[in-house]
Amino acid sequence: MMTAPLWLDAITFDENGLAPAIAQDEQTGAILMVAWMNAEALRETVATGRAVYWSRSRRRLWRKGEESGHVQIVHEIRLDCDGDVILLKVRQEGGIACHTGRQSCFFRRLDGIGDTASWAVTDPVLKDPEQIYK
Amino acid sequence: MMTAPLWLDAITFDENGLAPAIAQDEQTGAILMVAWMNAEALRETVATGRAVYWSRSRRRLWRKGEESGHVQIVHEIRLDCDGDVILLKVRQEGGIACHTGRQSCFFRRLDGIGDTASWAVTDPVLKDPEQIYK
Repeated sequence: MMTAPLWLDAITFDENGLAPAIAQDEQTGAILMVAWMNAEALRETVATGRAVYWSRSRRRLWRKGEESGHVQIVHEIRLDCDGDVILLKVRQEGGIACHTGRQSCFFRRLDGIGDTASWAVTDPVLKDPEQIYK
Repeated sequence: MMTAPLWLDAITFDENGLAPAIAQDEQTGAILMVAWMNAEALRETVATGRAVYWSRSRRRLWRKGEESGHVQIVHEIRLDCDGDVILLKVRQEGGIACHTGRQSCFFRRLDGIGDTASWAVTDPVLKDPEQIYK
């Protein structure tokens, strides 16, 4: 890639060259997912207006929606005070961000207090993952 | 600590025993901050209903608000599909989550497209940090 842009200097990537990125629905404020970005993913996101992450499992750029069609149109990019967390306000195409076919990856809620609490699945599967990744 | 509760098994902490935790305003949906939790911090959060993080710089539990008084009352705890990111829906006492005296740590917005974009500070300082940490 060419010379890094000045705005990239504000970001502190971790020892693996990554920073967590939160995708938030720009209209409802719902938190859809958290993934990771390296400098290249963020630069492509800024250049194209679509969310691009770094897949730690596949060790390559992950253009969100490349298989599912569930791309994220980026309306706003924010950075926190330490410069090590990125926030994307997005429009989620298809209304499904999670690979389980749900709107959000945060579909489990801890019910109860203390050691006897338990996770409850609160959000419905909107589309069978087998129909999403076919 | 005593035997770990069953609900803790759902969480995958990283190689440092930590997971990122997002604090979101339970009423407005605004993302206030991202910090880190280890198992002990999360257990204390669940037990007390107040956000407790792990401070990586100080290497100790960080009971949010212990110095500033800006505690976070936890209304809901969520977990993502991979079990490696925690979401807290909180009421932020004092309306200030950031150590800079702002409501949110995400007070910088990237304006523009491509390499000539730049960060703009969009949110006001509500209280002088010297008055917060005195």
